[in-house]
Amino acid sequence: MKKIEFSQIGVINTPFKEQKDIPIQASFGKTIEASCKIFEEYSAGLKDLDGFSHAILIYYFHQCKEVKMIAKPYLEDKEHGIFAIRSPYRPNKIGFSIVKIKKTDNDMIFFTGVDILDGTPLLDIKPYVKYFDHQDNTKSGWIEKHFKEGNIPDQTILKNK
Amino acid sequence: MKKIEFSQIGVINTPFKEQKDIPIQASFGKTIEASCKIFEEYSAGLKDLDGFSHAILIYYFHQCKEVKMIAKPYLEDKEHGIFAIRSPYRPNKIGFSIVKIKKTDNDMIFFTGVDILDGTPLLDIKPYVKYFDHQDNTKSGWIEKHFKEGNIPDQTILKNK
Repeated sequence: MKKIEFSQIGVINTPFKEQKDIPIQASFGKTIEASCKIFEEYSAGLKDLDGFSHAILIYYFHQCKEVKMIAKPYLEDKEHGIFAIRSPYRPNKIGFSIVKIKKTDNDMIFFTGVDILDGTPLLDIKPYVKYFDHQDNTKSGWIEKHFKEGNIPDQTILKNK
Repeated sequence: MKKIEFSQIGVINTPFKEQKDIPIQASFGKTIEASCKIFEEYSAGLKDLDGFSHAILIYYFHQCKEVKMIAKPYLEDKEHGIFAIRSPYRPNKIGFSIVKIKKTDNDMIFFTGVDILDGTPLLDIKPYVKYFDHQDNTKSGWIEKHFKEGNIPDQTILKNK
């Protein structure tokens, strides 16, 4: 099995010190403020990111040690394949969140919309581009029933992670 | 610098044998058909992915050896920070595409909407969830001017990668 090695490029700081306090998805943590600090050798790469309203953060679920191919998502008790849910128990512990950029400042990004644990290692940042990333006519499988009539589910803070 | 190791979970097969033939983004390759083959030990994780219309593929830019912190994106001659563009010259060569699922079948996903090189190592698959991933009121920085009035740019196939 081919191994691929990446380097941490920075660290994500959020108010969430424990996994149980984290919103299920970034879109549920819209008012919560957080930041990334990019290590010095990579900080030049932030140039012009401040022209974008949103960024895609790709990071490492550093506190998750378990791997499951079938798992229960946070929203329900039914099991689904790991590639049909967003939980961290994946074979490669790659996390993905779209956050709203407040500002950038030298080696820092300040943003809102977080579902990420404090101290999480950052792997990549990409600009969110509506022409590529905003999909219409979508169908969200088992998740649809939890968002009936476009509502956000009641249980947006995890109780039993 | 902390190193993080991942394993290839499958392979992406597309009609693009050379980088110069690839559309700039998945959204420009809407009619092009492609597939992923997931390695046997991970294929159980595909359960219920077929309920989703779109998937997020996270993969490794295996043919890109160069790293740049400032680079010219494909659409223009001006330089931008690597974290404000989507090109492969990033410190961690992580690729990200949203594709439209046609069907899944055992260890295979068939999809359209590709901007990926044939033989690309796959790292992760996540379901595209409109409630998390569909952002409104976005601003796409330097890219906006290339999509005036919502048009797709003329030069959607790369000539000079």
